[in-house]
Formats: sequence, C-alpha cells, structure tokens
Amino acid sequence: MACSHSIHDLLAGRVPFESSVTVQGWIRTRRDSKAGLSFLHVSDGSCFAPIQVVAPANLPNYTTEVVRLTTGCAVIAHGKLVPSQGKGQTHEIQADRIEVVGWVEDPDTYPVSAKHHTFEYLRTVAHLRPRTNTFGAVARVRHCLSMAVHRFFHERGFFWVHTPIITSSDCEGAGEMFKVSTLDLNNPPRDAQGQIDHSQDFFGKPAHLTVSGQLNVEAYCLALSKVYTFGPTFRAENSNTTRHLAEFWMIEPEVAFADLATNADLAEEFLKYLFRAVLEERADDLAFFADRIDKQCVNRLETLTNAQFERMDYAEAIRILEDAQTRKSASFEFPIHWGADLQSEHERYLTETHVGRPVVVMNYPKQIKAFYMRLNDDGRTVAAMDVLAPGIGEIIGGSQREERLDVLDTRLEELNLPKDEYWWYRDLRRYGTVPHAGFGLGFERTILYATGMSNIRDVIPFPRTPGHAEF
Amino acid sequence: MACSHSIHDLLAGRVPFESSVTVQGWIRTRRDSKAGLSFLHVSDGSCFAPIQVVAPANLPNYTTEVVRLTTGCAVIAHGKLVPSQGKGQTHEIQADRIEVVGWVEDPDTYPVSAKHHTFEYLRTVAHLRPRTNTFGAVARVRHCLSMAVHRFFHERGFFWVHTPIITSSDCEGAGEMFKVSTLDLNNPPRDAQGQIDHSQDFFGKPAHLTVSGQLNVEAYCLALSKVYTFGPTFRAENSNTTRHLAEFWMIEPEVAFADLATNADLAEEFLKYLFRAVLEERADDLAFFADRIDKQCVNRLETLTNAQFERMDYAEAIRILEDAQTRKSASFEFPIHWGADLQSEHERYLTETHVGRPVVVMNYPKQIKAFYMRLNDDGRTVAAMDVLAPGIGEIIGGSQREERLDVLDTRLEELNLPKDEYWWYRDLRRYGTVPHAGFGLGFERTILYATGMSNIRDVIPFPRTPGHAEF
Repeated sequence: MACSHSIHDLLAGRVPFESSVTVQGWIRTRRDSKAGLSFLHVSDGSCFAPIQVVAPANLPNYTTEVVRLTTGCAVIAHGKLVPSQGKGQTHEIQADRIEVVGWVEDPDTYPVSAKHHTFEYLRTVAHLRPRTNTFGAVARVRHCLSMAVHRFFHERGFFWVHTPIITSSDCEGAGEMFKVSTLDLNNPPRDAQGQIDHSQDFFGKPAHLTVSGQLNVEAYCLALSKVYTFGPTFRAENSNTTRHLAEFWMIEPEVAFADLATNADLAEEFLKYLFRAVLEERADDLAFFADRIDKQCVNRLETLTNAQFERMDYAEAIRILEDAQTRKSASFEFPIHWGADLQSEHERYLTETHVGRPVVVMNYPKQIKAFYMRLNDDGRTVAAMDVLAPGIGEIIGGSQREERLDVLDTRLEELNLPKDEYWWYRDLRRYGTVPHAGFGLGFERTILYATGMSNIRDVIPFPRTPGHAEF
Repeated sequence: MACSHSIHDLLAGRVPFESSVTVQGWIRTRRDSKAGLSFLHVSDGSCFAPIQVVAPANLPNYTTEVVRLTTGCAVIAHGKLVPSQGKGQTHEIQADRIEVVGWVEDPDTYPVSAKHHTFEYLRTVAHLRPRTNTFGAVARVRHCLSMAVHRFFHERGFFWVHTPIITSSDCEGAGEMFKVSTLDLNNPPRDAQGQIDHSQDFFGKPAHLTVSGQLNVEAYCLALSKVYTFGPTFRAENSNTTRHLAEFWMIEPEVAFADLATNADLAEEFLKYLFRAVLEERADDLAFFADRIDKQCVNRLETLTNAQFERMDYAEAIRILEDAQTRKSASFEFPIHWGADLQSEHERYLTETHVGRPVVVMNYPKQIKAFYMRLNDDGRTVAAMDVLAPGIGEIIGGSQREERLDVLDTRLEELNLPKDEYWWYRDLRRYGTVPHAGFGLGFERTILYATGMSNIRDVIPFPRTPGHAEF
C-alpha cells in the first residue's frame, strides 16, 4: 500500500520541510475557514498530537467530501510538509489530495464524538475509547512502561519466565480463585458421593486461574539466578472498587543469593527506572495528564525519580504512628499497635507526612504475612517489605523467601497448610537451596500512579470486574 | 549481600584476568585430581557454560566440604580469575574460599543428577529441569526470542496491547474454550428451566478463556494504527500430541492501512529478525542444540534468515501439488484439489521440495477460512496467508481483515453467526473503517523451530495438557 509517514515522525522533525508526505489516520476535528479552506486535525495514534492538514477548496473532492468529514472518519492525506503558523504546532501539511477511506455512519450518534464523555460512559464503548485523547495516552504510557519493564530486567541479566496461568495447585493462598473446567456444568459427572467428578475434567482434577507466578518462578530462580514474570493474574473477589480488577497484570522479579536489603535496592532502582522512562519517552502524554487529569502527575514522577527512598523497620513505623496518634497530629480510623497490618491511612501518613518521600517498611510480624517469607532471628518477624510512595501508599510488596526447609515446614504446620501439596516447592529447599528474594508490582496501579487516572478500569484495555467481561 | 559476578560476564571477558572475583551458583560436576585439588564446574544460568573453579587442597573446608560437593549443591566461590589451560574454556577461577550455601539432600536420589534423563521423565520434575543443560538453554532462547519480539515491534512504532484473557464473547470461533466460573459447581444455582444460572456467576454470564486476542486488538489497531498482542491463549482440545498445548503464548500484530502484501512482508521481516537475534545472542545455547538435539538447527536458522520468501497463490499451490501427484514425484495421504485445506504433508512438499525456501501461500478459498478474512474480488477467495517454512510447515497464519460492513454481515449470515454478539466488532466497520491486516505466530512453535526440540511440552516452563496442570 502507499508509503506513508507516522505523525510522530513528522512532528518529531524526522522528515525535512518541503517533503512530499502522506499520512493515514482519523479526523479529530475539522474547521472550515471563511477563506475557503479547511483545517483537518488528523491523528494516527503514534503520538498524542494530531497533525494539521490544510485542505484547500480546489481539491476535487472538497465540497463533495472534505467539508463533510467528521470526527472519526478515516483519511489518507497527501501533501507538502511545511512549518505551521498555528499556535502549539510546528508542522502542518498542505494537502494536494485527500482520500476518504472510511466514513462515520451517522456522525450525530458516533459514540466517541468530539464532545465530552464521562469515563464511566466510555467503559461501555471500550472498543472505541482508545480513539479519545485520554485513552490513547493511557495506551501509549502503558506500552512505554511495559517496554521499560523488559528493558530494565534484560539489561541486568534477568530472564523473563512465562509462569502458568492455569494451575491445579491450590496453594498460592493470595486470594479467591476462578475455577477452570471443561465439564458440562449443567450435567456434570458425579462420583459415588454425589460430588463433581473432576477426574473426568480436562486436567483430571480441579483447576484454577493463577493469583501469582511467584512460587513457580522461584523454581526458575534457583536455576537461572535472576528471573521475572510479567503476565496476567486473577482475583475472584467481589470487590467493586476503583483499585481492584478480576484480571490484571503483575511483574514479579526473583533473585538468587539476594537478601531483603538487596531486594529493597532493586525495587527502588526499578521504580525510578520505570518512571524516568515515562518522563523521557512520553512527555507528550504526560503533559496532557498534568493538564487535564492530575496537575501533580509530572511533578510526582520527577520527585520520586530523584528521591532517596527511606528504609524503616516495621517496629519503628508503629512507634511513629502511635506517637502521631498520641500527639494528635494524626487521627486514624484503624487501631495501630505492634502486630497490626498497616492500613492505607497509616501508609499514607508514613510516606506523605512523616517521611515526605518513598519509604520501604521492612520486617513485619510473621502472623500478618505469607508462609513463604523468611523468618528473622527474632522469631517473630519475617523479612518482608512494602514500598510506600506518596500519593498512592503501598506500590510494591516483597520479601526474602524462607530457604530453610525445617523452618518452612514449621511455618506450613503452624498455618495448617498441606505439606504434600507443596512437595515441589519444598524440593527447592532440599536441593541446593540458596537465600533468594523478590517482589510484586501491580502493573495497573503503576499506570495509575504515572498518569493520575483514578479508576483502575481505565488503565487496562478491556477491564474485567464483577458483572463485566464484555468485549 | 556479597558483590558477585555473573558467569556470563566472566566468560565474555568483561572482567580482566588476575581480578579478585566471586561467583554464586550451583555445582554441575566435581572432579578430584590426583595432584590433590578439585575442579568444580559452577553454573549460575546466566549462560550455557559453567565456569571451572579450581579448589586447592589447602582450603580450610577442602576435606570436610569441597570433596563432598555433588551436582546441584549451591556454592559461593571467591578467588582469582586466570586464563584456563583446559580445553574449550578460556577462563577459570583459582579459589581461595568456597562457601557451601545449600547441600543436596541424598545425592543418590537427586532428581536431576548429572546422569542422563529422558525428557519425558524431566517433565515430572518441571521445577528442577531448568537446572539441566537442555532446559536452561531452552529458557534462555525463549527469553531471547521474547525480547526480540518486543524490540522488533517497538522499533517499528507498534504498541503492545494487553487483550483480555477472560472473555464472555463466544465469538472467536478458533477452537474449544475453557469455562471460567466462581459458582459452587457441586450445588450451582439453577434457573426455572433447571439450567445453571450464570446471572449469579462472577461475570453475570458464562465466561471463557480467550483463544485469540485478534478481535480485541483490532479495536486498538483502529485507534493506534500499529499494535500487537503477546500473551497466553488457550485451547480446550483433547489433543495429546507433540505440537499442542492447552495453554500457550501467541503473538498477534495488527496494522491499519495495510493489505495482504504488506502483511506478508511484515511476517517475513519479523521471522528473520527473531531468528537473527537468536543466532547473534544465543550462539552458546544454539551450539548445544546443534550438537545434542538437532544437527540442522543453526543451519536452518541461517538459511531462513538469508532466504527470500517466495509468494504463491493458493491456486498455484494446488496446481503444483496436483502436478506432483500426477507425476508421482509425491504421494499424499490427503486428497488435494481446489477448495481443500492444505495438510502438513502438502505444506512441507511446497516449502521443502518444490520451493526449497519459505513460502507465503495467499488467497485461500473462503469456505476453509475464518469469517473475518477479507473477501477478494473473485468472490470465492479471501485475503488469507500462511507462511510455510522448511522443517516445520505452517509457522504463521494471517489475513487482511474484512473492513466492509456489508460484506462482513453477509459472511456472518452465511456462516450462521450471531450478528448481535459481534456488535462492537461491527462498530469498527461503521466508524472510520480502514483496510487492516495482521497475523498470528505461535510462540512455542517458534521455539521448537529455533532449538530443534521435538515436543512442545519441553519449550514452555510448566506445560498444560490434557490431564496435566501440575506445579
């Protein structure tokens, strides 16, 4: 097909002025001048800005087609690239030919017309919303962050491991799971006790969607030393909030011969790398978010990338919070004492009010953390960490893993977890075990942080939540 | 923790000789010399080769620990990096300290001891098999190909789109689907007709695991112009073959304003890019595959990356195959005639015997292809393509998509597909439709091609197949 230029390349100055160029994209707006010409703003999604195409009245299809163009129509515009006199734009195209490739059927009812639409409404047209300024920008920032994730790890010698989505092990324990089956649910085979006979199911036993790739990726960590996952994970929790999805993407690095301090350093370096990439590569989209969505968003990212993250013991965090409550400099809804899990209000106080920078809280009481976290010498805390950041609270959770088989077994017994089910996880401690550590970063929460968007359903292409799996 | 070096960096000459170095990894083999020292081969997974650590008898733990080291034990070795006199190795470490971090419990029963194991057996210890030469190499090649996928598209202005895994649209039609539910399958709620009441299910209706992200990614294509998916996809087919997985990863690019010829060019460029990356970046692992798994594998990749892919019409392919059968230069099990789907034997004949290079077969009869493929002007073929390569047959399948609403609707009606279910897919043709095209590449089949491995279960970390979802 016709050789064309991306609007990004044209606006970035990669093509000299006076060149003959062709752009392919969709009309954002059309404005007709009294001087007898039209200004078309054409977008191809390659960058935030559309390019202005000046369509003179002497185009053969000017009156029959050009003046009928509306938002969303697809066009191919040929012409000369020239400096633009317009405000806020450096380049424009003086068109000598405009082909209309696809019309908008009944522009008055076009679901994503140029007028204002609520995000809530736009979720009902998730197939069209990437054509809007906001969702185009979200998609590009999401891509930018994705690439930064891979680049960060690849440059540091990590290997991406595709951990399984379907799992028959029920032992992850991180949340409610979706069941996966091929049985005829209306008339399932039943065993002698009248229970569903999963031996006739696809996998020969009950299967679920994974809630985390961590346990699996640990196996690869103890062979390849530095690994990470980046894939979809699932929670079947009936949470209708702006922060929960039933299907979301998560990043989980795991490093052999690493302790909690190394883990915290990696988490800090990682977050700074991600946000620096967005600042450098998606300045156009960030300017839009700062202008329209969240005035603080660029400032917040710059502050984070330049900040030194504080390290703080959980016990110290508790003292700080108790003290704040005593001094009445803070009033918390949830009680605070050693042994209590930190709530969002506590996390925000620590990072925003007390420290004023990101903070890594470390060494939590073992009873509020998962079985696989390494028991500290005090016998009552584990080598867990949460990274808290101003404006969001917890953004990363991680730990050093329990590498000692006897200690792990004791924890499994204390928690009444079925040791047999963990046979392969325990094997990793029987054969060449080493200290290792890792963390998890929820990808959509990272995008919320970068963009200032407030609902997690608006930063994933097709959100899945209770009652919603359309498209 | 201790500052250490990756074995890859040491063997690649990134650290000068005579430096003090530390490596952390696992024992591959130990050989004791009569001269009173031991040679330890230590691997950390960062590259194919282990590094040789020479442990002198005067180490304080030489007799108590070093001579008891067996395959799989975890160690930290400190010493001086020196040129190696050994065959096939350039560097070795003269150890001045060896810490044993993790022993192997009962070396005689270590599941992945240094002796030969069948791939079938190793599948039963999928948590340990990445420690073997073969599966370590597969993991690194898989990573290399993954990074190449992202780099290829990113460099060309494509955006990675995370299409949904759970879908309630039943309209993909590419194969049997897994059901996803949170209902109590033993006692599900039933409606007045006695059928399962999915209105009480998590998503309020039946939900499944996706078989392809194509339809979803088309929506993003018609906003961002160049997009791709790279994620897990699912087939609930009871196929127990060396070429089928229930869960596998797929790559699906989609390009706006592109026709079938552009699509074929992109597919050719993409495959060459991927295999060139493996040849350049994983020469160490490929040398192993060529030596132990498939003598042809390096040669096959080099040939493909240097070949010009042939383009051939389906009709011509049929003539060639009929002619071969008539001349008795080939004898096919499956009948060949215009309108028949090409079987593997036909594909292999075309690419291996007739052309001797990769070939893109284009314009198939519409009745053997999916509803969304663009109808050609002859009214009986569609703008579909398959890329066939010597040694594997079909490796990529793609098409130009039907962008004309009336033609699409006629196809939906001919195939008795529910138009209502496709409302949003049809919307894309009502609002600024443009010609667009894309293809799908099965990621695991690509790894099979690159490595010469013969069973698809051996190129994904934790394979899911009928009866198998362990780990």
